[in-house]
Amino acid sequence: MGDAGSPEDRLIAQYFKPLARHPAAFGLSDDAAAITPPAGHDLVVKTDGLIAGVHFFPDDPADDVARKALRVNLSDLAAKGAAPLGFLLAIALPKGFSEDWLAAFARGLGEDADRYQCPLLGGDTDSTPGPISISISAFGTLPQGTMARRSGARVGDHVFVTGTIGDAALGLRLRQDAGAGKAWKLDAAMSDYLVGRYRVPQPRNALAGVVRTHASAAMDVSDGLAGDLAKLCRASNVSADVAVARVPLSPAATHALAGHATLIEPILTGGEDYEILCAVSQPDDFHAAAQAAGVAVTEIGRIVAGDRAPRFLDRAGRALAFSRPGYSHF
Amino acid sequence: MGDAGSPEDRLIAQYFKPLARHPAAFGLSDDAAAITPPAGHDLVVKTDGLIAGVHFFPDDPADDVARKALRVNLSDLAAKGAAPLGFLLAIALPKGFSEDWLAAFARGLGEDADRYQCPLLGGDTDSTPGPISISISAFGTLPQGTMARRSGARVGDHVFVTGTIGDAALGLRLRQDAGAGKAWKLDAAMSDYLVGRYRVPQPRNALAGVVRTHASAAMDVSDGLAGDLAKLCRASNVSADVAVARVPLSPAATHALAGHATLIEPILTGGEDYEILCAVSQPDDFHAAAQAAGVAVTEIGRIVAGDRAPRFLDRAGRALAFSRPGYSHF
Repeated sequence: MGDAGSPEDRLIAQYFKPLARHPAAFGLSDDAAAITPPAGHDLVVKTDGLIAGVHFFPDDPADDVARKALRVNLSDLAAKGAAPLGFLLAIALPKGFSEDWLAAFARGLGEDADRYQCPLLGGDTDSTPGPISISISAFGTLPQGTMARRSGARVGDHVFVTGTIGDAALGLRLRQDAGAGKAWKLDAAMSDYLVGRYRVPQPRNALAGVVRTHASAAMDVSDGLAGDLAKLCRASNVSADVAVARVPLSPAATHALAGHATLIEPILTGGEDYEILCAVSQPDDFHAAAQAAGVAVTEIGRIVAGDRAPRFLDRAGRALAFSRPGYSHF
Repeated sequence: MGDAGSPEDRLIAQYFKPLARHPAAFGLSDDAAAITPPAGHDLVVKTDGLIAGVHFFPDDPADDVARKALRVNLSDLAAKGAAPLGFLLAIALPKGFSEDWLAAFARGLGEDADRYQCPLLGGDTDSTPGPISISISAFGTLPQGTMARRSGARVGDHVFVTGTIGDAALGLRLRQDAGAGKAWKLDAAMSDYLVGRYRVPQPRNALAGVVRTHASAAMDVSDGLAGDLAKLCRASNVSADVAVARVPLSPAATHALAGHATLIEPILTGGEDYEILCAVSQPDDFHAAAQAAGVAVTEIGRIVAGDRAPRFLDRAGRALAFSRPGYSHF
């Protein structure tokens, strides 16, 4: 990014420079940022992108698109136990994009950068013949060697998730099919809630320190609870049994599911939850620490021995069968 | 990125996991990488992207596309004086992409990661309804507080560039217009050379340490020498006078320019040079150190007082006028 000069430089100066207040960013006036990591700390780095028509709807509000782009990365930092340090933004805009869109995008991004104390450090703007594409690389810090891994789960650990599961998957269906809300007998507030959960994730960064100190394994739920738990189990060489009835659902999801039992599949496999999934050996300590951090957590099952896929058991103890366990782009 | 499981996980495991040998990458088996920066060092971070049809031609060889994607970022690290540490890759592929393309891309990327000792640390793969898009965030290290800035140039400093200027801009024209090579009376080797300079940059990472210790200001030339020198001067609150006749040109560019004097404009403003532009106070020391590092450098002018745009002076001392000083996406 540059300063005054070309039209591109002008856009950067007007919309993004105000977000780059961290000294490491040099006000976007240089070619790169220079981060001084705290002594004795590791830097946790992650990149995740959004593409219009894939990860968000082209008519979603631009400020919400910005929030989602940053928050899907913040969610990874939280699940790894890291405190946000800052981020790089790469954005590709179609020729003739609306400057109002960009202004709203920058406003939403700046508000979230402040809220999560994760400032813009630098970036890259391009034009594209394709849809709007946003790629964010986020950096977090934590004491050296303490990153929560996928691979530490032990037999007997208790499996927890934050918040509620499945809202975003149902919200996506509501966005895709205007009749779904009526079919599921949702009122407007319930529909809005679910769509909002799809549109703007609520990453659990307040839990990062608790995850780092209490979880034997952790990851964020982005590709569906079933698929992501399978990944955590594979990395840890274990399996898991989950009680479906214990998976925490929002009132709106509970309402939709009550009339349409098959919705349990998108709820458990649809993804974009951006909740934290973790295994802990001391559930009471973890629960108390999470409560102190103000983040709702729910125990949903146990880690067991074996290399089979995790089972999701109904009240009769039967394992659910999913047509596909998680999201894949290909 | 994940491990076995979905088709997406399989692609990652097959093509990208072999590149993620650095311990910080956890073999791409986790959600994020954890970098332990060397004590007393800063981390220099930079993101830059390539989009098919914008930054490369859709039929460019995939391994060269990968090289370019990494090298445009390595060039920034070099110009800032940083040694490469690693990178994150975000790649968006159209549905039905060719797996041969991906295999060649990964091969080129892996070769350059080895060559520049800049390993893959993590990434993100997506599908897109648009063209292939690649965004790389690169990390480098240098002793704390020593990043070469744009803003340190002083009146009287000598202005240097590495390598040769304008080749990529001419190479791009040759790619766009099959008749240009004939019009410029280039033989096949000359045309190939110029196209190659567009397709695969040669970042000057061997000069990073010399830049850090000898340059008062530095940046890489990506948007055209004239525009980028203007940025360096603005950041430093100075101006500059450059002798056009001293700007180093390749034999192919010299040949083309000899018959077509107007090519001086794309040569000086076209961009994608990925050479280092810097200001130094001790030109003899700098020259000797660059020679020892094996990188050709050429003095092209001096830093002068004032806030006007830098002047590019012909042999008669007249300043060239450019229709546009540098590349802008908008």
